[in-house]
Amino acid sequence: MKFVKSAICIQCGEEHHALPGLTTCRQCGGLLDILYDYPAIAANLSKQDLAARQDNTMWRFREFLPVAEESVAAGLLSSGLKVGGSPLYPAKALGGQLGLSSLFIKDDGLNPTASLKDRASALAVIKAIEAGADTIACSSTGNAASSLAGNAAARGLKTFIFVPSRAPKGKVAQLMMFGAKVISVEGSYEDTFRLSAEAIDRWGWYNRNAAINPYMLEGKKTVALEIAEQLNWQAPDYVAISVGDGCTIAGVWKGFKDLYETGFIDKLPRLISVQAAGCCPINNAVDADSETLVPMEENTLADSIAVGVPRNFLKAVRAIKESKGITVNVSDQEILEAMALLGKTQGVFGEPAGVTGTAGLIKALAEKRIPADATVVSVVTGNGLKDIANAINAAGQPLLLPPDLERLAGEFKNLGWLS
Amino acid sequence: MKFVKSAICIQCGEEHHALPGLTTCRQCGGLLDILYDYPAIAANLSKQDLAARQDNTMWRFREFLPVAEESVAAGLLSSGLKVGGSPLYPAKALGGQLGLSSLFIKDDGLNPTASLKDRASALAVIKAIEAGADTIACSSTGNAASSLAGNAAARGLKTFIFVPSRAPKGKVAQLMMFGAKVISVEGSYEDTFRLSAEAIDRWGWYNRNAAINPYMLEGKKTVALEIAEQLNWQAPDYVAISVGDGCTIAGVWKGFKDLYETGFIDKLPRLISVQAAGCCPINNAVDADSETLVPMEENTLADSIAVGVPRNFLKAVRAIKESKGITVNVSDQEILEAMALLGKTQGVFGEPAGVTGTAGLIKALAEKRIPADATVVSVVTGNGLKDIANAINAAGQPLLLPPDLERLAGEFKNLGWLS
Repeated sequence: MKFVKSAICIQCGEEHHALPGLTTCRQCGGLLDILYDYPAIAANLSKQDLAARQDNTMWRFREFLPVAEESVAAGLLSSGLKVGGSPLYPAKALGGQLGLSSLFIKDDGLNPTASLKDRASALAVIKAIEAGADTIACSSTGNAASSLAGNAAARGLKTFIFVPSRAPKGKVAQLMMFGAKVISVEGSYEDTFRLSAEAIDRWGWYNRNAAINPYMLEGKKTVALEIAEQLNWQAPDYVAISVGDGCTIAGVWKGFKDLYETGFIDKLPRLISVQAAGCCPINNAVDADSETLVPMEENTLADSIAVGVPRNFLKAVRAIKESKGITVNVSDQEILEAMALLGKTQGVFGEPAGVTGTAGLIKALAEKRIPADATVVSVVTGNGLKDIANAINAAGQPLLLPPDLERLAGEFKNLGWLS
Repeated sequence: MKFVKSAICIQCGEEHHALPGLTTCRQCGGLLDILYDYPAIAANLSKQDLAARQDNTMWRFREFLPVAEESVAAGLLSSGLKVGGSPLYPAKALGGQLGLSSLFIKDDGLNPTASLKDRASALAVIKAIEAGADTIACSSTGNAASSLAGNAAARGLKTFIFVPSRAPKGKVAQLMMFGAKVISVEGSYEDTFRLSAEAIDRWGWYNRNAAINPYMLEGKKTVALEIAEQLNWQAPDYVAISVGDGCTIAGVWKGFKDLYETGFIDKLPRLISVQAAGCCPINNAVDADSETLVPMEENTLADSIAVGVPRNFLKAVRAIKESKGITVNVSDQEILEAMALLGKTQGVFGEPAGVTGTAGLIKALAEKRIPADATVVSVVTGNGLKDIANAINAAGQPLLLPPDLERLAGEFKNLGWLS
């Protein structure tokens, strides 16, 4: 924690020591924000230092992360799953189709457990070890869960995981494979979250619930640090990202702000906050210029962002506003279309929630809310293999045939596949 | 093709110019093997050169690969999906459980389309471009297909893909998402292969069928090059890998041999060839010390290696023998157990065929066919998310409950989850 100063409550401003087991403000229960000594980071780390590092995981940015010096010295950073270092693809074909001159796709579905959430979970297990815990728990719509289970398994920690019973089977199977004790809760994400909080309280496990645990956002911010470095320290004009609980978009914003504070970049991007039209309480609040959460039903097939009562609501709303960001709500149909378009034009396969940012970007461009000469990064937050049922919905069925060349030729003709 | 000399038939020895559209021997129809000028590679590339390269994809080994200088100059190598650079994890927990002092897991399921096959497909699309083709075709049990579809989509090439109708829905959905024209063949892998060959012949597409296309093995060998470099140029004593068509294990062997020929490593590993007991024609031939293929039924849930008539039969059999390798056949149950064990101990989630190598290693250790002090690399060739149905079989079901803490406490007590 060489460069961490403290944790500040974003509601009442109360300052806290940045202990490993930190949750919410002891004064008012508000969310905490990790504060760094930015001049000290700038004095100790240069772009050249980073360029010389072989480590291409998220830990290459360790000066920007809240990890104890003892953890670094003990080799903890290099002994877990290899999280981060996901590709940033120049998306010429998709950009061309959308009339956007400079589009990049950050494929974070290529993390070890196939979602951006690995960035938070990798940090969670280190903070749990620093706190002396051997068991970690969280509630999640799926990805935080499987990432926690995988990252904890790789380090020999036990996990208790609470998922809503609607979570896709793929995600549940994945975390079961990682040896987690899984509790599937018959109820909403809100019910699931509450039960996990009660259980964590009762049995004293380390708490990986993002929003409650201020370190999770710090892990997620590494996606922004990577984007900036991959763009050779030119911040993009816009970053489009899907929004559910709000932790990820707030993390992206924190990452760019941290870089700005230390002089690694000289401007900040604007956020494109994309939610499913069937569950968009954060965008609604931004649109109403309000900091009051109005909960919503969870009506979208993009399960990872179906969060009716977002716990990181305030951080997300403030991040979007502070960045002079724009909000876009998309239909499930628009999400499936973005999924197919990303696959076909760029060879990137995202889950519905993973491509919602791209769906919003497409819509914002169609509505001319973004200039065609802007540099835009669209973050794909989860792998399409996590939710095959919806991929099948989006992709259709293959041509089923017996092994007969003449039948094949006939079908090709009918379908126009050879033209 | 700076360092490629020619392509040699492994049956009759006939030498061929290494043209981009190369398939099998014009003389006898045998498989071709790409031959390099090893002293020239050694004179032009050092371990230090490699260490200084920032590129951590498979193209960091371009001197060992059959790509035209024009492709390199045109920037083709860096413009596709980011293939290769998968992690090699020291597997202390799993090694400890198995009584093996030095075990490493190479997780190749973290490639862009989630399997080792990306290494072949990334090369296929470059060779297709070099051959002036705009359409590529292949038959596949699934992974070669989705990797070809993804890698082709990322470069704007069209694909026709033939899969047996038993291929898991996840794999099919993935390749449909990449915009491939998919033909699902009601028949065996052999029927599927034959129909694809007839169609390729009729419509003149570029052929990515491994075994027919000698370059595919060259792409796959990069997994061996990476392993050697990640082990700091100490070749392991054993490499355990699942075997279906035979191309992958032959590729692994070619990779180590190429390194040995150029002096990058000073010994060769022994191969542990692992097949499903329900479909093991390659291991049967090795065990019988025969080079005659006796086809088998395809009776295993590990669909990616359910190949009754392996096209790379001869290369695989020779590789295993030449390496003084061992053969292991495992049951489907042993495969599912290995899957759960890898997940639980190392946080690595592989598909059934992906973990078959590990299942074989476990069995060989139990039978004391491998010394406990050996250094072993087990390659996981595909991601578990590709085949969720079997993951659910292996992992079981979560604990389903209403959101009620007292009910939860009671269930925990019954299940012994808190002890």
